[in-house]
Amino acid sequence: MTTHSDEIERLVGLLARLPGLGRRSARRAVLRILGEPERVMLPLAEALREAAAAVRRCESCGNLDTASPCAICRDPRRERGLICVVEGVGDLWALERAQVHRGLYHVLGGTLSPLGGVGPEDLAIQPLVARVASEGVEEVILALPATVDGATTGHYLTDRLRPTGVQVTRLAQGVPIGGSLEVLDDGTLAAALRARRAV
Amino acid sequence: MTTHSDEIERLVGLLARLPGLGRRSARRAVLRILGEPERVMLPLAEALREAAAAVRRCESCGNLDTASPCAICRDPRRERGLICVVEGVGDLWALERAQVHRGLYHVLGGTLSPLGGVGPEDLAIQPLVARVASEGVEEVILALPATVDGATTGHYLTDRLRPTGVQVTRLAQGVPIGGSLEVLDDGTLAAALRARRAV
Repeated sequence: MTTHSDEIERLVGLLARLPGLGRRSARRAVLRILGEPERVMLPLAEALREAAAAVRRCESCGNLDTASPCAICRDPRRERGLICVVEGVGDLWALERAQVHRGLYHVLGGTLSPLGGVGPEDLAIQPLVARVASEGVEEVILALPATVDGATTGHYLTDRLRPTGVQVTRLAQGVPIGGSLEVLDDGTLAAALRARRAV
Repeated sequence: MTTHSDEIERLVGLLARLPGLGRRSARRAVLRILGEPERVMLPLAEALREAAAAVRRCESCGNLDTASPCAICRDPRRERGLICVVEGVGDLWALERAQVHRGLYHVLGGTLSPLGGVGPEDLAIQPLVARVASEGVEEVILALPATVDGATTGHYLTDRLRPTGVQVTRLAQGVPIGGSLEVLDDGTLAAALRARRAV
């Protein structure tokens, strides 16, 4: 059967790998952008290439940025004694969009999952303990998902951080059970952060 | 506020322009692919660049392909006396996926819309009449959307093609009213094509 060319087929296949785009939407997207190569396709190709070349992980907090340390870690206006621990970079972005946290971040890269085979050594936990011990951190806010794995991770981090004497808090209940921080509205995020409490 | 870098922001903005991806899904997509630049980002950039450079419109039927005439128009196994008229390339792709049409195609590039300001000169109607008159076409199948504009376009094409003496048929009812060909399942497309009738 002759359908469309290899170039189009490959493009559809690659776009269909993006989360949120199935094969059908990828096809519609390709059809739409094929009509305007100068305005959409080439700029998108260029943006992908540049981002792939430029973006790296911040060696201090785990954020994605073009520099390491990242812009947040370098920002002199941020409170350096306050670290907000998140599961992933998407959660960090959500908190930044809500403009509710004036300290730094620490991206764990996941949550502990005994069933999923994710142990403490798979996450950036030792680097967090080291940061807290060496950088004069006063408070660690656990902004982890309200799931079983999130709670497990919170308990584990609290235990690991206890010897450092740092105050450990967690987001107030208000984060829906089972919910992901990344898709929460700014108001809920702000309320949960304001009402954080000692663990 | 320091959120993420310009490179990431530009990528999110460009991806959010794709149909089916809002800003939030674009952000999730970017986060996912930033983690694997070699496996996803660079191949996607390359595929976009190649497709933008290679893909053109078939000067005979209006299909998108890397060559003109396109692979379908060049295929010696296709019945050259049978032309299926579609609104857009997405409809052509849908019919090809269903493997129900063994003839050639003609992409109109839209439907007539008196209210939307789309007149006959905005569509590939004159080229269709010329093809039918010069290429020994025996039957023109109108595979237009089951909308008011689709019906208007069908009536207009029938009038324009009458002097050529070609047989004009249209897809059987079975295409849902208001539906777009592009999102139909293969079975419905096959049934509608089989039961096509003279106009």
